Amino acid sequence: MRIKIIIPNASKAFLATQVEKRRQAAGLGVDVDVICLNEGPVSLEGGVDEALIGPPLLVEARKAEQEGYDAIVIDCAMDPATRAVRELVNIPVTSAGEAALLCALGLGDRISVVTVLENTARVIEDRIRTYEFQGRVTSVRFADVPVLDLEHTDRAAEAILREARKAIDEDGADVIVLGCTGMSPVAAFLQQQLEVPVVDPAVAALTLAESLVRMRLSHSKKCYLTPPKKEIVGKQFKDWGL
Amino acid sequence: MRIKIIIPNASKAFLATQVEKRRQAAGLGVDVDVICLNEGPVSLEGGVDEALIGPPLLVEARKAEQEGYDAIVIDCAMDPATRAVRELVNIPVTSAGEAALLCALGLGDRISVVTVLENTARVIEDRIRTYEFQGRVTSVRFADVPVLDLEHTDRAAEAILREARKAIDEDGADVIVLGCTGMSPVAAFLQQQLEVPVVDPAVAALTLAESLVRMRLSHSKKCYLTPPKKEIVGKQFKDWGL
Amino acid sequence: MRIKIIIPNASKAFLATQVEKRRQAAGLGVDVDVICLNEGPVSLEGGVDEALIGPPLLVEARKAEQEGYDAIVIDCAMDPATRAVRELVNIPVTSAGEAALLCALGLGDRISVVTVLENTARVIEDRIRTYEFQGRVTSVRFADVPVLDLEHTDRAAEAILREARKAIDEDGADVIVLGCTGMSPVAAFLQQQLEVPVVDPAVAALTLAESLVRMRLSHSKKCYLTPPKKEIVGKQFKDWGL
Amino acid sequence: MRIKIIIPNASKAFLATQVEKRRQAAGLGVDVDVICLNEGPVSLEGGVDEALIGPPLLVEARKAEQEGYDAIVIDCAMDPATRAVRELVNIPVTSAGEAALLCALGLGDRISVVTVLENTARVIEDRIRTYEFQGRVTSVRFADVPVLDLEHTDRAAEAILREARKAIDEDGADVIVLGCTGMSPVAAFLQQQLEVPVVDPAVAALTLAESLVRMRLSHSKKCYLTPPKKEIVGKQFKDWGL
Amino acid sequence: MRIKIIIPNASKAFLATQVEKRRQAAGLGVDVDVICLNEGPVSLEGGVDEALIGPPLLVEARKAEQEGYDAIVIDCAMDPATRAVRELVNIPVTSAGEAALLCALGLGDRISVVTVLENTARVIEDRIRTYEFQGRVTSVRFADVPVLDLEHTDRAAEAILREARKAIDEDGADVIVLGCTGMSPVAAFLQQQLEVPVVDPAVAALTLAESLVRMRLSHSKKCYLTPPKKEIVGKQFKDWGL
Amino acid sequence: MRIKIIIPNASKAFLATQVEKRRQAAGLGVDVDVICLNEGPVSLEGGVDEALIGPPLLVEARKAEQEGYDAIVIDCAMDPATRAVRELVNIPVTSAGEAALLCALGLGDRISVVTVLENTARVIEDRIRTYEFQGRVTSVRFADVPVLDLEHTDRAAEAILREARKAIDEDGADVIVLGCTGMSPVAAFLQQQLEVPVVDPAVAALTLAESLVRMRLSHSKKCYLTPPKKEIVGKQFKDWGL
Repeated sequence: MRIKIIIPNASKAFLATQVEKRRQAAGLGVDVDVICLNEGPVSLEGGVDEALIGPPLLVEARKAEQEGYDAIVIDCAMDPATRAVRELVNIPVTSAGEAALLCALGLGDRISVVTVLENTARVIEDRIRTYEFQGRVTSVRFADVPVLDLEHTDRAAEAILREARKAIDEDGADVIVLGCTGMSPVAAFLQQQLEVPVVDPAVAALTLAESLVRMRLSHSKKCYLTPPKKEIVGKQFKDWGL
Repeated sequence: MRIKIIIPNASKAFLATQVEKRRQAAGLGVDVDVICLNEGPVSLEGGVDEALIGPPLLVEARKAEQEGYDAIVIDCAMDPATRAVRELVNIPVTSAGEAALLCALGLGDRISVVTVLENTARVIEDRIRTYEFQGRVTSVRFADVPVLDLEHTDRAAEAILREARKAIDEDGADVIVLGCTGMSPVAAFLQQQLEVPVVDPAVAALTLAESLVRMRLSHSKKCYLTPPKKEIVGKQFKDWGL
Repeated sequence: MRIKIIIPNASKAFLATQVEKRRQAAGLGVDVDVICLNEGPVSLEGGVDEALIGPPLLVEARKAEQEGYDAIVIDCAMDPATRAVRELVNIPVTSAGEAALLCALGLGDRISVVTVLENTARVIEDRIRTYEFQGRVTSVRFADVPVLDLEHTDRAAEAILREARKAIDEDGADVIVLGCTGMSPVAAFLQQQLEVPVVDPAVAALTLAESLVRMRLSHSKKCYLTPPKKEIVGKQFKDWGL
Repeated sequence: MRIKIIIPNASKAFLATQVEKRRQAAGLGVDVDVICLNEGPVSLEGGVDEALIGPPLLVEARKAEQEGYDAIVIDCAMDPATRAVRELVNIPVTSAGEAALLCALGLGDRISVVTVLENTARVIEDRIRTYEFQGRVTSVRFADVPVLDLEHTDRAAEAILREARKAIDEDGADVIVLGCTGMSPVAAFLQQQLEVPVVDPAVAALTLAESLVRMRLSHSKKCYLTPPKKEIVGKQFKDWGL
Repeated sequence: MRIKIIIPNASKAFLATQVEKRRQAAGLGVDVDVICLNEGPVSLEGGVDEALIGPPLLVEARKAEQEGYDAIVIDCAMDPATRAVRELVNIPVTSAGEAALLCALGLGDRISVVTVLENTARVIEDRIRTYEFQGRVTSVRFADVPVLDLEHTDRAAEAILREARKAIDEDGADVIVLGCTGMSPVAAFLQQQLEVPVVDPAVAALTLAESLVRMRLSHSKKCYLTPPKKEIVGKQFKDWGL
Repeated sequence: MRIKIIIPNASKAFLATQVEKRRQAAGLGVDVDVICLNEGPVSLEGGVDEALIGPPLLVEARKAEQEGYDAIVIDCAMDPATRAVRELVNIPVTSAGEAALLCALGLGDRISVVTVLENTARVIEDRIRTYEFQGRVTSVRFADVPVLDLEHTDRAAEAILREARKAIDEDGADVIVLGCTGMSPVAAFLQQQLEVPVVDPAVAALTLAESLVRMRLSHSKKCYLTPPKKEIVGKQFKDWGL
């Protein structure tokens, strides 16, 4: 089984901090390739970043299907362009935010998400409402740490831990969902400190992708219809081969 | 008062069929400029189109604010990149799908949307859930007419009318929301045929924008936070000046 | 365009404090007549007041339609008898509470209403549930200032401001909706003090009424059916001409 | 125990058809007095009727408390002015629509209401949303029989039966709630014909009132606050002693 | 009328503390028999207890119907096996948790439940979601007093009172529902101390059962279908006569 | 990794038809042991069966943890006693109904469940509401085939297929969830016939259990609290070692 993990930003440096964690998380006999994009914002932290990342993300997703991968992981907890990618390809597509929530929903009644910035929290709240999970999500908190500062793992971990504890003590959370896949390197530390399950969205998305491939299930094309062919105007889009 | 209406696709031909309707809809003393984009899909009909249109739409939105417009209308019933545009600018931003729903919510208990394609319907359903309006929207139907075929107004109008009647008779709709701003030219015909209010999303968005300007209200920057500055990689984005 | 604004209480003194604000809020070329009722409680602050105000409000609404007005505004944030008035007349009817909520729903994710008394808050909460907006309204607070004390604008403004700040800081409100049209005179002051949009319900209802007239839209008579003719017993009702 | 049942319309003829059914429904040792109002519409079938009935209904409710009754029943399935009556008095107040829904919620998962006219159905739907019971109510149907035609029991019963059967077969109803207390005389016939429980709202409200008295429970005055004293202007209101 | 109250635990000592309260609560002419089970946990405080109690509870419920009782009360606020009992028998079955919530829903907008342990609270929260009452229930609190310690009434009452006050002051509760039928002996004390209605679930369930019998209503067998006959394996089940 | 799959009924014959499917579904390096219970109903089809199965299911779950299994699968789409099992053990517990829904929620917007009998459908609907997934589940249908008749695979498959097609065509389902783990042998046939994903609950629960073990995640003990120790009365419970 071959799975393509697409980190939808354009930071090689960020990629370098994540690859090993993804490889370790892969199942027996699962080949995992982890890439970031060649173009786009260097991190995804809000609605503007999400709106910019669409074209290069679609380019890589289409390529992954053409290269014969069995599944695609969109490795970002904001689930950017997830509907679009599923419209575009037929192989299973999991997305870190959605996968982490689905995992958490089976682990406790009340879920809290702890993400990086308030901008990010707002996009994640949009997704939670889109999925109609708001009745089970008791809060979306943010540690006020930009994605690219997550590499200062000690300080970042402390800030995330502080919000996670508030989620548990003040919001009644039974399960913590990390709201950024860049938190993967500090997930184990957080799990050690906290008495409730801590879901790493990057790992949840990879594991779910593997399960779908094993079950020979992909997203419903009745829901995610293949888009009608149409002209796309503009040199930039031509450059992308779109 | 000057309002910039951005039709977020790259079809000059489509633009030509819409400009007059928008000008007629403008209030006394309101200057309306209607543009489409220089790049992007020639029509917006689903998730893929929405994911592609982000960068050129943001470019035009930022420009509109810099040019001193008092408000921006995103003239598409799928509300593409609306959160992103609101993060980016401080002037009021209305969006056709959201504005039409807000208008319809004051006109009757049960709303149906009639849009162009099933792909489009799915994106609109996502938005309705994101706004938490699903308890008041009884159905989202589609006429199975691509956006660019809406200019064959007779055939298009018949197909839309047929679905609107089903929405009223079978789904119990009290109000019909047209689910594509390209339906503006047939809106008057549809209103004549139907005994319930028919909301034209292009007009609803323009009218709401004017009202916001008059009330000196804009979207909450506490909700739509100005994005942190960051590097955006790639020649395409450089071309766009992003 | 001629719009009749009906303040549904029987206080000429209160009326006097409001007329100018409404006139200022009217659009270009819009004639606005503002009246209060000849009978009824001198202010509307809870369920009992709402139950008493029905007959004189219906009398004035019917009269407004007969006089050829283009739209009616029910100038009270509790939306008293709004369904009844819409059943009775065919011209557009906006109501201050509903109009303010519809406006606010387009400005931010989480709305708080700040009204006068707890009794009033309870009626407004009923309305929010009736409209199924509870998922977007994070709190309904009250300043504990009776309607007729709003004319002591300084003290009233301070009390409202205090609750609005709590709504923002403790409840996470992105937008403040003033929960009484009598707060119109202090709305500008509140907007100056607060970093989030403050929606004046009186102005929202007037602006929406103008927009509906311009769009040639009125409420759905499929939803608000014209009532069957029937005998109404009693001298009081005869006096009212009902 | 003494209970005052107030039928909130002004038809002595209608009253005559209902009194016996209420007396039969009373529990051991319960004195029931059934009245209608001296003023108001002769039947309650929609929002306008509801808006008119407020003042005379409040008059009788206050009187009932002063006369020492132990509880008040508002004998109408639209629950007119129920909040107002509860604000006004301290003795328990049940209302036929609410009481019937509460009873039905314990008898099956999915409830359908069958009422008289579409106007009535719309008001009942408002109430269901206000109570947040919409997830359990699968439909509100109407037999298209005006209240005062219910005395033609055969024809009325057939029409109600037809809608109740559709509610069961098409909407999946487990329980039928009669949506008008004037249906009390045909309730036994309907129960014989239908395989699911049929809840008579008049009886449900009376039985609940008795239970509350026995349990020494009344509505929460924290929720239904006693209204502030205030001037009520107008000869009509003076006539009513308000 | 004869009603069988089944306390679904196996503690004769607990039974002894409750019988008198139930008898006092019975209506005129109502014969009440109160039993506990011969087997099972000595108290019901969470999911495990609920899962164990099924067989002996079904045995007693079937017996009660065979003995000619008019109704069954499941005297536990966790509503254990309520669906099962209703499938098994045709006579009305009320359950203390459900009955108390239905009663409370008619007394105020916002309900809080105060129960014994956190385990119990979790099961009650499950039920509230199953009934779709979560929009009206503002909190489920627990006094951290095991069921069998409720007989130390002073200490127990203090702990319950403390949580009830928090429910009112911090959660905005209008009505308190006691979340354990073992709290019946302290209900009167709590009602004296608190300014809002306090619903005793044991009494609510008994009163509702009486009302259903009087109304000749039972649960819908369309919803609670009689189970298909089938083999049950195992000596234990044979011992129970299942 | 060792996983214990507990089919919570007492039919060795049924077990024999399922074991092979479970073994085939297991991942690389995963040891799967599939058992049924020694006592209880021979199939689980409604609330009564669910209420009876608690004690023997808890016995086997506790034993599985003591035997050192890494996870437990409750192999029934009604999710019987799932809360209880999670309270009792610390190793991850997945349940077929819940796991299938979580899987399906990532594959399309609208889910339909197709189960065996109407009794079963009612229990599954309870669960869907308990999980607050009702906004995403468009229908729960039943093929009217008892569990033990599923071995007549042709007839059963036809009946299930017919309901699944109605779910797609009439209810708008994007994804079909099989509502009984006994449907596992016909799942492949159904998937061949249908154009939308078909989720086999037995496989979904096993796959999810494996993923949780790999992620070192288990259910939150803050949500599923270890039950307090207490006396359990009765020879039957003693026989079970409870």
